Amino acid sequence: MNQSSLGVVETKFYNFAEPPQELILKSGIKLGPITLAYETYGTLNKDKSNAIVIFHTLTSDAHAAGIHKDSDKPGWWDGMIGPGKAFDTNKYFIISSNVLGSCKGSTGPASINPKTGKPYGLSFPVVTIEDMVVAQKRLIDHLGIPHLFCAAGGSMGGLQALLWSVMYPDLVHSVIAIATNPRHTAQQIALHEVGRQAIMSDPDWQNGDYYGKSIPARGLALSRMIGHITYMSDKSMEEKFGRKLIGKEKVGFDFSHDFEVESYLKYRGDSFVQRFDANSYLYLTKALDYFDLAEDGNLVSAFEKVKASLLVISFTSDWLYPSYQSKEMVKALRANDLDVSDCEINCSYGHDAFLIEIDAQSRLICHFLNRIHKEKINDRS
Amino acid sequence: MNQSSLGVVETKFYNFAEPPQELILKSGIKLGPITLAYETYGTLNKDKSNAIVIFHTLTSDAHAAGIHKDSDKPGWWDGMIGPGKAFDTNKYFIISSNVLGSCKGSTGPASINPKTGKPYGLSFPVVTIEDMVVAQKRLIDHLGIPHLFCAAGGSMGGLQALLWSVMYPDLVHSVIAIATNPRHTAQQIALHEVGRQAIMSDPDWQNGDYYGKSIPARGLALSRMIGHITYMSDKSMEEKFGRKLIGKEKVGFDFSHDFEVESYLKYRGDSFVQRFDANSYLYLTKALDYFDLAEDGNLVSAFEKVKASLLVISFTSDWLYPSYQSKEMVKALRANDLDVSDCEINCSYGHDAFLIEIDAQSRLICHFLNRIHKEKINDRS
Repeated sequence: MNQSSLGVVETKFYNFAEPPQELILKSGIKLGPITLAYETYGTLNKDKSNAIVIFHTLTSDAHAAGIHKDSDKPGWWDGMIGPGKAFDTNKYFIISSNVLGSCKGSTGPASINPKTGKPYGLSFPVVTIEDMVVAQKRLIDHLGIPHLFCAAGGSMGGLQALLWSVMYPDLVHSVIAIATNPRHTAQQIALHEVGRQAIMSDPDWQNGDYYGKSIPARGLALSRMIGHITYMSDKSMEEKFGRKLIGKEKVGFDFSHDFEVESYLKYRGDSFVQRFDANSYLYLTKALDYFDLAEDGNLVSAFEKVKASLLVISFTSDWLYPSYQSKEMVKALRANDLDVSDCEINCSYGHDAFLIEIDAQSRLICHFLNRIHKEKINDRS
Repeated sequence: MNQSSLGVVETKFYNFAEPPQELILKSGIKLGPITLAYETYGTLNKDKSNAIVIFHTLTSDAHAAGIHKDSDKPGWWDGMIGPGKAFDTNKYFIISSNVLGSCKGSTGPASINPKTGKPYGLSFPVVTIEDMVVAQKRLIDHLGIPHLFCAAGGSMGGLQALLWSVMYPDLVHSVIAIATNPRHTAQQIALHEVGRQAIMSDPDWQNGDYYGKSIPARGLALSRMIGHITYMSDKSMEEKFGRKLIGKEKVGFDFSHDFEVESYLKYRGDSFVQRFDANSYLYLTKALDYFDLAEDGNLVSAFEKVKASLLVISFTSDWLYPSYQSKEMVKALRANDLDVSDCEINCSYGHDAFLIEIDAQSRLICHFLNRIHKEKINDRS
């Protein structure tokens, strides 16, 4: 078993109990009832000032740290969260929240529609990153936390962290946004659209009504294969696979797999099918594509209400969320006289670096959180 | 009608007439009879010293220049080939050759297998870039050309041009290799494999036996969508599409297309299905993935027999065949004391630049061909 100093953890589920039990989404549609899956690590202090909320990527879940009591699996950021780690559970109370639209314990297209008694499928309303944040705000209220010391996340999680500072400027003291950007670009939309078309082209997709029947496994696996290429870099693929053949000395001159990279992608695609819902993939990629902090075209004014201090981290080899996009965001944040630390980490892992480059990120995050913490105490004294 | 100074041209077909009518492929399998589609522009001079052979990309064809007599369409490199153009038909005799495995008039998986009277489908043998070059050599022999003044091409065509100089060092005076590389990398193989899996996952593919029935249109369109993203760049997609919506002011909050880039990809996918055979896509991407000039791991020794002068062109924004790969090749060529001109063109078009950046390429190619031509005449006098 992979050891984790946090020990065994479990996922909890918050069902919107207090009225309103529904959310009015950005589209204007009402959605309810709503459940959000989440985990917590560490202890909320007396003055409730040490809460950090962590947001995950597109296909991840609330299990960010520790060993899960059901699966024995370590969390996806276990190297970053725990006693003495970057997000130090001796100091901070960490909440890791799943998102609306996901299939990982929160309300999404695979959930039962109470009006029909059947899974929503495509009758689930399209949700946005804003809607996810509004739902998370309800969770944070429920936990009795009036103010977040930090909102942090990478990739899709970074968008949520940023949005917290835009939507609730008085409630967020600091933001850590990693491998992310302020608006989805044409290339990012294009890559998602191919993944969506792969799913929707699968005859088993059945217009989203496949629950209890054959799932659109081929389409979903394809979408993951495409995704996985975008999470790595040209260089990391070359270092990991190059032109290595699978257990043979020569190519086979047929259409079976010859190269390790081919079987690796197949493995990644097939294992994704076991753990993720195809409709959720459609909804979450759509939410990402709709994300645009500067809907009126002006990124500087988009950040004008933000009060948080920010740490923005990007990776040289990340071509899905390239560093220049983080830099554009940093420029717009600084134009608002905000306290922004901007760090580009030199590495070959591509977008996945945010899950792999633990040491480099830990140093930056420890330093940032310590500084913000000290400044906050000094402000008060 | 798009005017072309070359006027109307037609595609010709060379059927291997002289024995052997078969080719022994790299796999050891015999293939025959064989047809190669080709076009020619300009006139072969008396001493047969002015022949340039042009090679096309993965999904293109022999119609490189002029207006095709059947389709009225200009050739894919019409801006580059013609009287007074980079490949000047007043000076040179240009041969544009299609490839083995294609569906554009040459023998490929959609051709009739004479032994069964039915299309080959997957019984067509896997061909390599080497096999394509051996077949083209037969065409050049048939045209009575003892020696090529130049072999030129971009992308897959560049691989063929390079291979000519490696396989027939005494027969090729110069090579122009554009947006290409000396061996396919893991990322390139991965991107092709997703395209292949998209086709092979389509139930209509029927293990390649779909001729005369429903074609695997959804899978083939998907493979083209992926391909098209790799042919553009992040920047060119942003410049062309950004987040522009399709004839609406707001996103639709559903899974129809919202963004122009989505409908553009769909259009590209759908139109590809009308003009290309899915099995050919499998065979040609496999040929590309098998391509490795340094099968023993040593690129310098791979070029040791080459005698040609070379012009290597790459593009700053090409992430499918990045410039560093051209530079690795240039280094290995120079280690063999070869005459190599290395040019990286600064532009945002990505891999497609080789079809778009006509002016910049024309200057480089004119200069290179003029120099090589003068040196050749001086050598003789």
